Amino acid sequence: MAFRFFPKTFNFFALFEKQVGHAVEAACLFKEIVAGGVITEDAMSRMAAIEHQGDDVAHKIIDQLNKTFITPFDREDIYALAKQLDDITDMVNNILSRLRVYNINTVDKNLVEFSVVIEQSVRAVARAVGGMQNHKDGQTVFEACVEINRLENVGDAMRDHALSELFAGARDPISVIKWKDIYQEAEIVLDVCEDVAHVVDSIMVKQA
Amino acid sequence: MAFRFFPKTFNFFALFEKQVGHAVEAACLFKEIVAGGVITEDAMSRMAAIEHQGDDVAHKIIDQLNKTFITPFDREDIYALAKQLDDITDMVNNILSRLRVYNINTVDKNLVEFSVVIEQSVRAVARAVGGMQNHKDGQTVFEACVEINRLENVGDAMRDHALSELFAGARDPISVIKWKDIYQEAEIVLDVCEDVAHVVDSIMVKQA
Amino acid sequence: MAFRFFPKTFNFFALFEKQVGHAVEAACLFKEIVAGGVITEDAMSRMAAIEHQGDDVAHKIIDQLNKTFITPFDREDIYALAKQLDDITDMVNNILSRLRVYNINTVDKNLVEFSVVIEQSVRAVARAVGGMQNHKDGQTVFEACVEINRLENVGDAMRDHALSELFAGARDPISVIKWKDIYQEAEIVLDVCEDVAHVVDSIMVKQA
Repeated sequence: MAFRFFPKTFNFFALFEKQVGHAVEAACLFKEIVAGGVITEDAMSRMAAIEHQGDDVAHKIIDQLNKTFITPFDREDIYALAKQLDDITDMVNNILSRLRVYNINTVDKNLVEFSVVIEQSVRAVARAVGGMQNHKDGQTVFEACVEINRLENVGDAMRDHALSELFAGARDPISVIKWKDIYQEAEIVLDVCEDVAHVVDSIMVKQA
Repeated sequence: MAFRFFPKTFNFFALFEKQVGHAVEAACLFKEIVAGGVITEDAMSRMAAIEHQGDDVAHKIIDQLNKTFITPFDREDIYALAKQLDDITDMVNNILSRLRVYNINTVDKNLVEFSVVIEQSVRAVARAVGGMQNHKDGQTVFEACVEINRLENVGDAMRDHALSELFAGARDPISVIKWKDIYQEAEIVLDVCEDVAHVVDSIMVKQA
Repeated sequence: MAFRFFPKTFNFFALFEKQVGHAVEAACLFKEIVAGGVITEDAMSRMAAIEHQGDDVAHKIIDQLNKTFITPFDREDIYALAKQLDDITDMVNNILSRLRVYNINTVDKNLVEFSVVIEQSVRAVARAVGGMQNHKDGQTVFEACVEINRLENVGDAMRDHALSELFAGARDPISVIKWKDIYQEAEIVLDVCEDVAHVVDSIMVKQA
């Protein structure tokens, strides 16, 4: 391992709270847009702005990580957490972009359901990340992680149901290609939330 | 790096053997189902049961890893191995679920061939993982890893052949979408087996 | 962590330069083939040869990593770099194989554009990797990384544009399936280049 000399510590928790805050904003906006059923230029640029802010925080965390010798928990966990929280915001933004690219203007009920579950999961991620800082919040963190895992299973079932429906009623192959993509991307957001839960859980266990 | 104090050691090998055992069970059941050509409700629940057992072992390994200070080999290798062995079982289960979601009832000969190669590869993974514990089994491990790599190449060729055939004879686009997905997922199982071989190989080299 | 005793050091830079050289060769050949518009058997085997050479270097790096106790920078960064540089060559080769599997003989203008951007990005990766060795080349490395990030954004826009066009004019669903795949794989090459830029950037920061 290369020799480093950065003898300062740094409080990463504030940055993680900020980053997860952007993920929550993105998930809320996504739910709002999908519920409205119309994807406007304005909604797109609001989402892009959130995504850029999330990116900035991720870069700050990685920069600090590279410069900090003593970290509050394992370096690879900090890196994984920054990457995964960033991925949540990115992927929510991506679904929106994909809807535009596919020229989909009428959102279907399955995507509305996904957007509700995604928002619930990202809020649970925020509780888990927020509770990590305070050792007494172990129960909050634990419950949030259980909830995230539950919602990931819900998401799997939703995707399978949506795909079954899509293929059963398939008339237009082009439309099948588009929606298969959208449903799968929506489900992956919940997978990433679960990855965050695993990292948070492992951090808590190591510090127990 | 956070300070930890877990001065106990733990024998991870027994858990890895158990985990790879579930992967072999999954691969055998998959081959059996595909050979039979019919996916029954009973087969689905047997596979789901294996997948749950595999999950349980994976969780035990990660929990132990977080609690153990001195590990028989690098922490990241233990984590990678637990994750990848879990992925094998998950992915075999996923292919089955996907066949159901797509309402595919007649299994084709390409998938039968894939199931045979997948079982061979997972059995080689079991030999590699089993041999890791015993330094004298270096030759067994080495040969198993070579075999896994060979089967991954076989899988690539099988996928390319299956896709060529699928697209060349393409009449129904919906069916193309479904089978493209299935073939690609089948090939990814062999990729994950190869990832295991790389980790095992690297563990053996470090301990040489 | 397992106990190891490999008290020798090793200069990894020469191997990384070699590996990135193969990636550049692959990207150049890809651009040449795509510009020619025809995928010959000869071109395929030249690309396969480059890919094998890249593989060999990757294996050498990993072997050395496993045998070397003191590394010029963090072990996980060496591993990530070897893996990602290998991925670039692999993926460029994969696009070519996929074109063959899909029996696509007439390359379209979007893929030509992608091939130009891919070559630019891989050349910037080579500058970044080459500059890493020399601390005085910080500015070269920094500029190359900025360029790689810029080209990744260009690639995102190109993929979105190509997909919009593909779906807007969609007559033949089979052709849509094929080209969607090709465009997405082309864009992923640029993502991998960006991953390299992140690793290189983080190595430079740690050594600052």
